[in-house]
Amino acid sequence: MYLVNIILFEGFETLDVFGPVEIFGHFADVFQLKFLSLSGGLINSTQGVKVETEIWSPTDVLRNNVNQVKAQIPEILFIPGGQGTRREVENPNFIMHLISAHNKAAYTLSVCTGSALLARAGILDGHSATTNKRAFNWVVSQSSKTNWIREARWVEDGQLFTSSGVSAGMDMTLGFIAHLLGEEAAIGCSMRIEYHWQSDSTKDQFAQLYND
Amino acid sequence: MYLVNIILFEGFETLDVFGPVEIFGHFADVFQLKFLSLSGGLINSTQGVKVETEIWSPTDVLRNNVNQVKAQIPEILFIPGGQGTRREVENPNFIMHLISAHNKAAYTLSVCTGSALLARAGILDGHSATTNKRAFNWVVSQSSKTNWIREARWVEDGQLFTSSGVSAGMDMTLGFIAHLLGEEAAIGCSMRIEYHWQSDSTKDQFAQLYND
Repeated sequence: MYLVNIILFEGFETLDVFGPVEIFGHFADVFQLKFLSLSGGLINSTQGVKVETEIWSPTDVLRNNVNQVKAQIPEILFIPGGQGTRREVENPNFIMHLISAHNKAAYTLSVCTGSALLARAGILDGHSATTNKRAFNWVVSQSSKTNWIREARWVEDGQLFTSSGVSAGMDMTLGFIAHLLGEEAAIGCSMRIEYHWQSDSTKDQFAQLYND
Repeated sequence: MYLVNIILFEGFETLDVFGPVEIFGHFADVFQLKFLSLSGGLINSTQGVKVETEIWSPTDVLRNNVNQVKAQIPEILFIPGGQGTRREVENPNFIMHLISAHNKAAYTLSVCTGSALLARAGILDGHSATTNKRAFNWVVSQSSKTNWIREARWVEDGQLFTSSGVSAGMDMTLGFIAHLLGEEAAIGCSMRIEYHWQSDSTKDQFAQLYND
């Protein structure tokens, strides 16, 4: 069992979150999903969805750190992208929370411009990563110590998974399921949700379109 | 400008709603999105997302009917599927609301087993429609007066659009965008969200998999 901490902020991109949530949700015996935000309460996506969240509190972070010696449920940190990332990269409180949460996570996943937040927090330093193609240059500017992959549906580097724009988050999450539970589990899920999984992480038809 | 009334109920399927919402949301000057439920307040998806909704009240339905002679913002009725449909087909109050909302809508769209609700309400009588492939026989049992299409990514019949399971809702919504705003608008949106649009509504690789 893994606890998936899904971090929301005002102006997150709807599908960045709920594509992957659909997939995680199909493995209810493996993943427990938690929606967190700095403020708690209702958080608005750019597309106007109001989602209820619990408070992502530093107290929780500290308490969890103290308890880390105990056999704890392993955590997965999930960071979406969206317009709100432009604000949160400048928010030291958000970045501080991100670093703490990453430090205790077994895996950290981001979709789209979510990797800008990870980059600003230094989490991607010395690692390979990708991001949304339209915002590529802006995201890259958040860390010069990251090996940014321009053409990839998603990039897997140890405990880090980063995806291209919006819809690519679903392909990455199925890739993550394949990594964790085997390819058959990922294919089975894609069938159940009637999804055409782009299972080759290196194929990226959109990289060419936004080649600036 | 269209008002899209997105109807939620306990146990709706996450991606059925938020895939299409992502797409509608990219045309903020064309679509205003409203999340409605019988109770109002927070509604849970099967995957554990809590979404804030306004009350889908009969009063609103009546008031809108009275005002229908005025130049009103045209409405689109959007019905997702999910486990909760098994309960709502047996809920006369839900079905009554559905009929009223459909009667004043310019278009009615459903994803996955959402078509079971439309079928039970008689909305699909004399029309062609499709649905989720795993629940096909159950959905078909809701109306013998519907021309159920077994192999289709989605079916367009006049003002009615119905899709296959879960992910097919995104392809249908892009098809609906193409119908309403032209194919270029739909392709442009699919590019922006880096989505591989299955633009041929008659191609359905999943129909064969669940051929029972």
